Amino acid sequence: MSLRAVAKVLAFLLLVTAACLLLPAVVAVIYREPDWRDFLITSGIGAAVGGLALTLLRGAPDLRVREGFAVVALGWLVVGLLGSLPFWLSGQIPDFTDAVFESISGFSTTGSSILTDIEGRSHAILFWRTMTHWLGGMGIVLLALAILPLLGVGGMQLFRAEVPGPVAERLTPRIRETAKLLWGVYVLLTALEVVALLLAGMSLFDAVCHAFATMATGGFSNNDSSVGGYGSPAVEWVIIVFMFLAGVNFSLHFMALTGRWRGYARDEEFRFYGVIILLSTALITTVLLGASFYPDAGTTVRHALFQVLAIVTTTGFGTADYLLWPPFTHALLLVLMAVGGCAGSTGGGIKVMRVLILLKHAKLELRKMLHPRGVFTVWFNNRPLSPGLQTNVLGFFLLFMVVYIAGVLILTLGGRDLVTSVGATAASIGNIGPGLGLVGPASNYSALLAWEKWLLMLMMIIGRLELFTVLVLFLPSGWRRS
Amino acid sequence: MSLRAVAKVLAFLLLVTAACLLLPAVVAVIYREPDWRDFLITSGIGAAVGGLALTLLRGAPDLRVREGFAVVALGWLVVGLLGSLPFWLSGQIPDFTDAVFESISGFSTTGSSILTDIEGRSHAILFWRTMTHWLGGMGIVLLALAILPLLGVGGMQLFRAEVPGPVAERLTPRIRETAKLLWGVYVLLTALEVVALLLAGMSLFDAVCHAFATMATGGFSNNDSSVGGYGSPAVEWVIIVFMFLAGVNFSLHFMALTGRWRGYARDEEFRFYGVIILLSTALITTVLLGASFYPDAGTTVRHALFQVLAIVTTTGFGTADYLLWPPFTHALLLVLMAVGGCAGSTGGGIKVMRVLILLKHAKLELRKMLHPRGVFTVWFNNRPLSPGLQTNVLGFFLLFMVVYIAGVLILTLGGRDLVTSVGATAASIGNIGPGLGLVGPASNYSALLAWEKWLLMLMMIIGRLELFTVLVLFLPSGWRRS
Repeated sequence: MSLRAVAKVLAFLLLVTAACLLLPAVVAVIYREPDWRDFLITSGIGAAVGGLALTLLRGAPDLRVREGFAVVALGWLVVGLLGSLPFWLSGQIPDFTDAVFESISGFSTTGSSILTDIEGRSHAILFWRTMTHWLGGMGIVLLALAILPLLGVGGMQLFRAEVPGPVAERLTPRIRETAKLLWGVYVLLTALEVVALLLAGMSLFDAVCHAFATMATGGFSNNDSSVGGYGSPAVEWVIIVFMFLAGVNFSLHFMALTGRWRGYARDEEFRFYGVIILLSTALITTVLLGASFYPDAGTTVRHALFQVLAIVTTTGFGTADYLLWPPFTHALLLVLMAVGGCAGSTGGGIKVMRVLILLKHAKLELRKMLHPRGVFTVWFNNRPLSPGLQTNVLGFFLLFMVVYIAGVLILTLGGRDLVTSVGATAASIGNIGPGLGLVGPASNYSALLAWEKWLLMLMMIIGRLELFTVLVLFLPSGWRRS
Repeated sequence: MSLRAVAKVLAFLLLVTAACLLLPAVVAVIYREPDWRDFLITSGIGAAVGGLALTLLRGAPDLRVREGFAVVALGWLVVGLLGSLPFWLSGQIPDFTDAVFESISGFSTTGSSILTDIEGRSHAILFWRTMTHWLGGMGIVLLALAILPLLGVGGMQLFRAEVPGPVAERLTPRIRETAKLLWGVYVLLTALEVVALLLAGMSLFDAVCHAFATMATGGFSNNDSSVGGYGSPAVEWVIIVFMFLAGVNFSLHFMALTGRWRGYARDEEFRFYGVIILLSTALITTVLLGASFYPDAGTTVRHALFQVLAIVTTTGFGTADYLLWPPFTHALLLVLMAVGGCAGSTGGGIKVMRVLILLKHAKLELRKMLHPRGVFTVWFNNRPLSPGLQTNVLGFFLLFMVVYIAGVLILTLGGRDLVTSVGATAASIGNIGPGLGLVGPASNYSALLAWEKWLLMLMMIIGRLELFTVLVLFLPSGWRRS
């Protein structure tokens, strides 16, 4: 492992973040808010540290595959730490742990918050808060479609050939090319959502922030009551559409924008994602109508569809207090939480593609019972899956369970109640946001102890980076010099 | 599928059960209770139906592998139905669904009960109730070590060569030979426990019933407050020892009885089972001591060890109301519930062997990340696992999750609350007994609706028969004539 190569990329990430921090400074100036200074200071720190490091590491080698793991895991941490400074320096979040929690939750597109009285905060802080989502989402798209396929993580190898770009031994050139293409799609969709939200009657400021939070499937809102607080069905429908799009593999959007619209229909994961959403919405709508929860069918469908998408894409926005809904909806939403969005989207969770492969595998093992000498293959998108890829996906699922159980055991060992521990761990590792119990959708994470917040931050980063990427760093052999 | 071959074995099972039903009739006569008639009537029905069917099916072919699935799944159902008649005919359980529930829960060694005022019941009923456990446990030992290895179910192939016996194309001769050896061990251990419980001060009747329930890891007790109701530390220690033994692969006991004591130490599953129990007990003891739950360390260790064993072996006995313990103990006990006993024991759950293989697989996939071109193998008991066996075990785990989630969704769709649904499904599919919420350890299953009870009975049978055996019958190709 070449630590110099790793440090070089981290320094570069600091410089990029430093540049991004100028935008909220501009927002502060526009709204005549005093915290432009805090953003400039933070930007200066990032630029100084990053610039100095880059100068010192001028001769460092380029990245190879093995260093990729360290860059990805440490990258989110370093950027998250820098991004927390404005919250802390401005005094808006006086506790340092809380400031880092909000920042890591933002960059990991989780959307768990420790903030109270959100509507009383400065524009610059709210802008930066949702911008951390957006930047994190940008990183995730790149990670999922350009870096992880090369590292061979948890089935992402499937997408190795999906996005065009020069193939090279070294990571950098290929990643750069892919990044440009995908970020174009990401920026375009964000711009479209801003326009749509403006047309639905939102202010420009709120529209930009919510577009940031939607496209990243983050979930920070400028309203204390989340999206429901705007009381606008039009806004909710716009966010429904864009949550759906944010949960789709971005390489499909890329194909569509270059004229290959059929990519959606041909993609097995996309079809399954559609079926999950339609079926879940139909079931929840039926149950809610049966219990006469809302005055009319239209409102019922809107709330059901919104909540299904907010959960399955792991955005975590809310329009209705679904904790009051009948128990079946809770059971179904818990399952959707675990499923998550499509691979190559900004959504978290296990990912639709993996769930589909796991279900196919289970069915195949059942059929093998009857035909012990038969040869069976799992097919995905009309291609046979290699056994190695299959066991890799199974390994991902197992690690997900192991990390999840470990999180719950540690939190309860510290004395936290079971429901809160289960909810907070699931919401963090799945990058969902609101949990259950003390950290349910009606409250937030501020009441937790400092060590619990740090543990959940670790969970967010492990979950966001597809587990393998972070966990591999805990293997001693990962640090051996090669 | 030859239905005649299947029916022939089922008829034979009815005859065996009819013979067993004479025993509780004798108990009734001894205690001068009127329900000897109900047992005789049931025995007569079983003998008549079984005998008639056997005569009619005289020319039916012997069993082949494929019919094995149907025999196993239908066998538990048919015997469970016959075994429910005494409960119903005697008027002790006036509702037919409840009577079948108690019987299926007994034969599947689950131990979920709908009975209230247990101490007010006749001796014959209590005897038969725990005897269903014992007979079911006998069936399970045979199933796990003689039948499933031949059918290739969920990793049980590992035990194909463990127990000596003539190998033949047709199932029957080999099963018969293995059965004799294993049942010898089972009967011997039961007899030892009866003696030990007598020495600990229990009455002969209670000793026999509790030995039946312990060796089968069932959990029915003659006391309304379960084992704790006897208030005897000596009794609890005896049951601790025999719960531990009942959760061990019976082929290891067989080896030990034939002089090969080292089998225990050499068996990787046994060692892991020991580590799980010691570690869990140490953690729970520490937490309970920290909260000053019991007056002295001895009592604390006893309660912790008893509850760990009652849960991990899926027996479900209770000495303490562990719902009052701190939340960490609940999280840990929930994990132990899922783990279950060793393969080839009478315990339920996923099984220690499978959990060990799953953990090894996850670790291996992690190491693969760093060495993409390396060749890795999962080893178990000093033998490399074939990839087919590995994916079979993974498939088992996935099916377990699918059935579990389906159970929770169906129960909540019917309007049952989430905690009860989660607890009842887990307790049924894992063959544990007491669940959570409405069906927690302090109450029982009588308050559930009839269809919910039937669903849970299905879950008990699916879980008890290692999933594959039952689920394979839902595949259309399973019924094709061959």
